[in-house]
Order: sequence, then structure tokens, then C-alpha cells
Amino acid sequence: MRYVVGVDLGGTKTAAGVVGEDGSVLITEQIPTLNRDGGAAILDATAALVRSLVQQAAARGVVVDAVGIGSAGVINAVEGTVISATDAILGWTGTQLTAGLRQRLGLPATAVNDVHAHALGEAWLGAAAGTSTSLMMAFGTGVGGSFVVNGQPLLGHRFVGGHVGHFASPYAYHQARPLPCSCGHAGHVEAIASGPAIHSAYVREGGSAGLTDTRAVFEAARLGDELALAVISRAAAAAGQAVGGLVNILDPAVAVISGGLADSGELWWDAMERSLRAELLAPLSNVSVVRASLGASAAIVGAASLALHQY
Amino acid sequence: MRYVVGVDLGGTKTAAGVVGEDGSVLITEQIPTLNRDGGAAILDATAALVRSLVQQAAARGVVVDAVGIGSAGVINAVEGTVISATDAILGWTGTQLTAGLRQRLGLPATAVNDVHAHALGEAWLGAAAGTSTSLMMAFGTGVGGSFVVNGQPLLGHRFVGGHVGHFASPYAYHQARPLPCSCGHAGHVEAIASGPAIHSAYVREGGSAGLTDTRAVFEAARLGDELALAVISRAAAAAGQAVGGLVNILDPAVAVISGGLADSGELWWDAMERSLRAELLAPLSNVSVVRASLGASAAIVGAASLALHQY
Repeated sequence: MRYVVGVDLGGTKTAAGVVGEDGSVLITEQIPTLNRDGGAAILDATAALVRSLVQQAAARGVVVDAVGIGSAGVINAVEGTVISATDAILGWTGTQLTAGLRQRLGLPATAVNDVHAHALGEAWLGAAAGTSTSLMMAFGTGVGGSFVVNGQPLLGHRFVGGHVGHFASPYAYHQARPLPCSCGHAGHVEAIASGPAIHSAYVREGGSAGLTDTRAVFEAARLGDELALAVISRAAAAAGQAVGGLVNILDPAVAVISGGLADSGELWWDAMERSLRAELLAPLSNVSVVRASLGASAAIVGAASLALHQY
Repeated sequence: MRYVVGVDLGGTKTAAGVVGEDGSVLITEQIPTLNRDGGAAILDATAALVRSLVQQAAARGVVVDAVGIGSAGVINAVEGTVISATDAILGWTGTQLTAGLRQRLGLPATAVNDVHAHALGEAWLGAAAGTSTSLMMAFGTGVGGSFVVNGQPLLGHRFVGGHVGHFASPYAYHQARPLPCSCGHAGHVEAIASGPAIHSAYVREGGSAGLTDTRAVFEAARLGDELALAVISRAAAAAGQAVGGLVNILDPAVAVISGGLADSGELWWDAMERSLRAELLAPLSNVSVVRASLGASAAIVGAASLALHQY
């Protein structure tokens, strides 16, 4: 059986695992991402992480023959380069990701954006396993997603595909004005349906100043805070409406919902799903809407699947 | 060179043409769709139309070896059947489209929804020729579209993909209430951005009762009617916002805008494109937005391309 290393490189940590072509995950390891030190330092640390896994695998008689990496940022998956990244990882833009890893490791490497890797993992082994098409949408610090068709995420012509948080939402308005969005525009889904947007809405609408983050707003909601309940329900309704609209357009076999909000419990989930189903065209009314099931390992196995298929 | 017949079967008329694999269209012909007479009668009439074209081609020494049909309704493109259709074509639901044509004509037949055929035609020979991915959106009696990847429209798991008019639009509200949509829900793009929606908005907002259709509203706008100008601009902005949001998600090489409104002139187009570009993520800011170029022949050649590739 073939084995590869899958890497999930995010803004704060980099996790990796040895993954077999049957989907088994033998060993995993994690390091902080050197997000202030630039591309070369991150590649050095990532290569050291992969090398450690390769050696542990070898000690068990397992040979690793390729590396797949899912990385934050807009990734040119053909050339294996970082087209752009936010300041969350300084100096990441322009990094020769796959060439740098190949050079350091002597192994073939392949790369894709981490959200696409996440969706690929769920499509291979998780909530969408066995389906030919799946739409994954993640609601957390931001809103992102991926549409996977026959084991391949739709990357887009400029590798920008999957920005499912950046389309208009009727909910992303306050006093008839569109809420500012992280992309520089306004009125987008992410501006109302992300985790931070829930805290922002609570503060904007006069909630208790003592609640300093989204987690605290959820806690307040559990204790019966009416405003907290209202802003969470609205964010969830915005999320569900967005997913439902895209289901009408893409008609995936299954919609996979992921991210911290998807794991936050029934309050968010029920409002999200109710709103989602209210959007659906009649022939789509029975579409499966499922929670992502692989947790943190999704992007690792998704990146691994890419390496398994590429080499 | 191979030749096939491409058919565009719509609610009021059925057009067909003999199309060569180089994209040349030798002969075209058109009949009214027998939209009150049921599936068998429509198949009979369509087969007669195709037979006429096959004979005319034969007289020129050209052999037609297959038929591709783009049809109104939700079409199961694998089995060649009509999953569902509106009352615009009574008795069309359930029709064995390709089997019925094969039986009548003795030629292999393939079928797809007409909007997908339209987009395929533009992707092959029209505004998106030479690109690997294109998003076509048509704004006319309704709002529909198709995302074509490497010559294949994304049909969706239940062949419902492409319903780009049925997602939420912040513009599709009147006095804070979502406008009813043809799908039975409310607040969708089609409820504000279709042709009929422009006339409805004009009437709803107190426009002159003498204007009985969308064409008349456009005429009034040309003569300086402020309300007509406003409702057209708003519909165009809703259309552009919808296209822009989907460009962010799908990142097509090119966005093709089609339908009667796309052909209505600068008033609509300029407001549409301005709104579209205001949505785009920075790396997409230079995306090409072009008007469909094939007119009525788009679905004929698109359906033909399907037959050319399938057989």
C-alpha cells in the first residue's frame, strides 16, 4: 500500500500526518506555523515536520513516497506557488511551495488551498464519502468553501474559486447599510455569518460590553440573553440562506457544513438548516445537509488524497 | 467532416440546424412547439423537423449521424428524459426524449437542458470560445445560467444545477419584505432581475398604468421617466451583484451575459457591470464580462456539440 504525508498549513499551526491510500492515518504531528518569519523559514520548519513523520513511518516499515500540502492563501495548484496570502502569514505570498519542499525533502510535492484540502478530505473519507459531488461550506473565523466534483475541487481559473463568503446577503445590512466585509467590499455573507461577525453584531446592537468574543455571546445566549440569541439566529439564518442558494445553483449530492459554528450546537445549526431549506427548489428539497465529520484531520487527509492521485 | 442536428426546444418555438464539427451551421429551420399537445405530439413534430433537415443536408451530400437536443425543463442528461417542466409545455414532464427521437429517426440522440445548451454553444463558438471555464447567466423572461468546465456544463446531481436565479438578493425586497419568486419562495434574484420583474416593480411603485410590459418601461426610460430609469437600474444592479458574487465563488475565465436584458442597451448593461465589478475580490478585478454573441443559434450549436462529443 502507498503512503504519503498530508500537511495542513494554517495561520497559527501546521499539522501533518502519514496517510495510506486506504485512508488510514498512521501518525500525526503538529508545530506552530512560523507566521512572522517568512516563506523560507516556514518551508524549513514544514520540511522538518515531514521528515520527522517520514522517519517515524520508516521505523514501522512504511515508505512515504510523496507530500501533499493544503495551505492558507490563494494557491496556484498547478505550479505549487503561493499567489497571495494575508498578513496572518507574513512573507508567504510568492513562496515556491512545492519546489521548496521537493528541494528540501527529495520527495514529489503537490499543493492546494487548505479549504479545498478540507473539502477533499470530507469528500474522500468524511461526511461526503461515497458521493460524486459535494459542496462544503465552513463558517468560522471566516466563511470559505469548496465544490468537489469527482474527487477534484473546482479551483477556478485564477485559483480563487471557493470564496463562498463573498457574495451578497440580505442579512448583511444594518440600518439599511451594508456591513463592511474583510474583502474590502460590503454586504457579503462573511460580514454577517462568520464567528467574529456574531460578536460584532452583538456589540453594534448594544449588547453588554463585558462580552469580549463570540464564545461569550454563545454563552450569554445559553443563559437566555435575548440579543445574543437574536444575533446568533440571524447569523445562522444568513449562513443557511447562503448555502441553500448555492445548492440551488450547484445541485451537489450533499452539502457539508463545517467550521466552529457548525460545531457550536443546536441553536446555530437548527436556525441554519431551517433557513437553508426555505431556499431550496422543490426537486432539491430532500438534499442531505450534514456536519463535517473529520474535524482537524480533514485537510491532512484531503491534501494526502491529492498527493496519492497526483503521483 | 461529421455533421449532426442540434435542436433548441423552447416553450413557444423549436429551432434546429445542421452543424458541422468545425462549428459551421449549414441549414436552420424552426417550428412552433406544440406546447398544448403533450410529449408524443412534440416528439413527432420535432422528429419531422429533424428529418427535414437531414434530407436537405443529404441533398447537399452531407450525412447527419446524430441529434443533440437542448430542451426547456429539468432534463436527465444521462437517461435523456424530462424530469420536470412547467405548464409552458403541457405533458412534457416524463417524456422519454432521446429514446423517442431515436425511435422516430433511427439516429442516436442526446439531450440536455436548453440553458446548458445555450452556455455550451457560447463556450464552443461564441463569447467564451477558447476558454476552459465560463459562467453564463441569462436575464430575460427568467434568470438562468450554466457553469461550463472544459466543454461540459455542471449539470448537478439531480440535473437541477444552473438555477442561478434562485438565490437571495438584497435588492429583491420591497418595504422590507421579500418579493415573491416564480419558484414559490421569495427574495431571489429572479424576483427582481428578470424582465417581467422590471415591469412588476414599475407597477408596484406607482408607475403609469398605461405601460403594460417591460418593453414599455424601457421605452419610458428612454424618454426620461424617472421611475422607469430607477427600476431598470435597480434590476440591472441586482443582476450584476448576482453575477459578481458567483464569479467570486466559481472564478470562471469569463462571465457571459445573455438574454433579452443583456441586449437591451447601455442603460441596463452599464448599471449591471458597475454593480458586478463592485462585488469582485481583488484578484478577480480584471475578469472579462462579455455579452453573449451567438444569439438564437447558441443553444442549437451547443446541443450539437453535445452530440458531436457523445457519439
